[in-house]
Amino acid sequence: MVKKLNELKEWLNLQGAEVAFLTDPENIAYLTGYHSDPHERVLGLALFSEHDPFLFTPALEVQDARESDFNYDVYGYQDTENPFEIIAREIKNRVSSPARIAIEKSHMSVERFEQFSSQFEAASYLSIENKLQMLRLIKTPEELKILKEAALLADEAVKIGIAEIAEGKSESEIVAKIEYEMKKKGVSKMSFDTMVLTGTNGALPHGTPGATKIKKGDLVLFDLGVVHKGYSSDTTRTVAYGEISDEQKRIYQTVLEAQLAAIDQVKAGVPAKEIDLAARNVIRKAGYGDYFPHRLGHGLGASVHEFPSITETNEMPLAENMVFTIEPGIYVPGVAGVRIEDDIVVTSQGYDILTEFTKDLLYV
Amino acid sequence: MVKKLNELKEWLNLQGAEVAFLTDPENIAYLTGYHSDPHERVLGLALFSEHDPFLFTPALEVQDARESDFNYDVYGYQDTENPFEIIAREIKNRVSSPARIAIEKSHMSVERFEQFSSQFEAASYLSIENKLQMLRLIKTPEELKILKEAALLADEAVKIGIAEIAEGKSESEIVAKIEYEMKKKGVSKMSFDTMVLTGTNGALPHGTPGATKIKKGDLVLFDLGVVHKGYSSDTTRTVAYGEISDEQKRIYQTVLEAQLAAIDQVKAGVPAKEIDLAARNVIRKAGYGDYFPHRLGHGLGASVHEFPSITETNEMPLAENMVFTIEPGIYVPGVAGVRIEDDIVVTSQGYDILTEFTKDLLYV
Repeated sequence: MVKKLNELKEWLNLQGAEVAFLTDPENIAYLTGYHSDPHERVLGLALFSEHDPFLFTPALEVQDARESDFNYDVYGYQDTENPFEIIAREIKNRVSSPARIAIEKSHMSVERFEQFSSQFEAASYLSIENKLQMLRLIKTPEELKILKEAALLADEAVKIGIAEIAEGKSESEIVAKIEYEMKKKGVSKMSFDTMVLTGTNGALPHGTPGATKIKKGDLVLFDLGVVHKGYSSDTTRTVAYGEISDEQKRIYQTVLEAQLAAIDQVKAGVPAKEIDLAARNVIRKAGYGDYFPHRLGHGLGASVHEFPSITETNEMPLAENMVFTIEPGIYVPGVAGVRIEDDIVVTSQGYDILTEFTKDLLYV
Repeated sequence: MVKKLNELKEWLNLQGAEVAFLTDPENIAYLTGYHSDPHERVLGLALFSEHDPFLFTPALEVQDARESDFNYDVYGYQDTENPFEIIAREIKNRVSSPARIAIEKSHMSVERFEQFSSQFEAASYLSIENKLQMLRLIKTPEELKILKEAALLADEAVKIGIAEIAEGKSESEIVAKIEYEMKKKGVSKMSFDTMVLTGTNGALPHGTPGATKIKKGDLVLFDLGVVHKGYSSDTTRTVAYGEISDEQKRIYQTVLEAQLAAIDQVKAGVPAKEIDLAARNVIRKAGYGDYFPHRLGHGLGASVHEFPSITETNEMPLAENMVFTIEPGIYVPGVAGVRIEDDIVVTSQGYDILTEFTKDLLYV
């Protein structure tokens, strides 16, 4: 924690900024170890180029925050107080009139910015987000160990889901079973709403599981992940229930071929877009280009969506210890939806695949 | 839906604004019936003083949105496109050069605002949020019916949780059981992370359930709710496992007395703060004033936290068909945490309590 905070201190000095005020609970948890969801209340972390940081929380969380691993000052506010007055007072106690303040421009709302900036009339603002994303982009050995554990837990969850497939079972019943079994294993949170989609629902790439019941001849798509020690995994597998059509098989094989082609390109120094294009070209060649409407993948870490973004235009070169998903999909309305997703880490040798569940087409 | 959209059209005319661009998925769901969580992608609803609205979604949701109850235009964008260019183009196709645009200032980020506003150099901006909150504040008979159903489902969940209490069972095991049983009943989502806190954990008003095991002499606090047909419930009950101390009993009775005193004040025309103060005064008189560090309650509807806010300073007069929680609590570190919470609707006669589970101190 101290190392990361010091790196930001240095960055502030380089930018000529005296203060940073962070508001994204995820970044705050990443930097302080203090996890909190303040809902509509204000949670903040103030960093300084020349002073120790402080945490600012709703009054009812102050005790919790002081008992966390964050060993600096913690201030709170009651619902009846103006939080920005207290924040500004504590900042000005350290830097009487800051000229340049770093904020998270993609997290802070226009309204909060109006409230915050009204306290510092002379200041100009820069975004600290790119620096935070870069800090989070390269994982430490401890983070990689946790991400591997999280990936194996996601494999477990897929296994549980597949074991639940049966004629007439609904998507939401299977979701409930998966989440129940994971909670029993001590997983307190899934990294997003678990997706189990069957039949033509699978062709909605962001569908919501519901009362639809599984029947023979369906493809069943699982997209899920767990939050483990603050880090997320994310995997997708698609399996067949009973015999499926030749076109469904062809779609599956195309997605698998695309996924393997993309993974095969992963290596430090390769631009992210090359990974996306390797998969996209396979799908285009097979004639399904119009049915793959999303990017190939996204970074994974303390957040389930972070840098690097694996798109066909991202020039960012991959580097050792980056972690991201590779998840091509083909969605043909009324016919089939197939997606296959692994979590990948860039290594000195090339890559490791964190998720291990088989990608051979399973007939359940 | 059309009625609400027309009311906003009228409001835009009154404000002299030609366009509103909404980005909060909850408000969009409330106005269009289309529920979506776009994660970091852009979801938007454009409203006009003189034209029909349109929805804007990531490409992979366009099909889903067109199949929803929203019967106007839907546009999408690929991950490789600049969404704000497309949004601006479609807005300008309807109003070539808008002078005044309404946005949700507490939802839109500083970054998105910079991107959006760069497309409309001549425009000034106002916030539409207060209008939306006012629109959502007074529930329709259909909404009240759904909120009642949601409240009864929350009662069910508390019942399930209490039935699970046993020596050595952990908080997270009980959470898992509650959510599993609710999913089996077709509840696809809890309105927030279910809270089951036992022993001294209950004294952390925003604690997180974990491996702590229940033991005789503990108070066990349940705080939970469900999302039902897009609407949220929220209830809290605290029960005793085995014999508890006299101080724990005194704390329970004080919270209950405070809660009943507050409910007793609910009536159209009464300022929200009177409700908060009715409870707060009971708790202060009993000497626990410092141990009740949050507002008394919050509005409930398509969101689990909305207007009216029941604080000791809110002058807003209650009105018929407002729905909110009343949830006083006392948290004495190392001793006990007790909170009791009901969902209340203001009626022509006074009030109705939507949640029905008993508030007598239960010994399990």
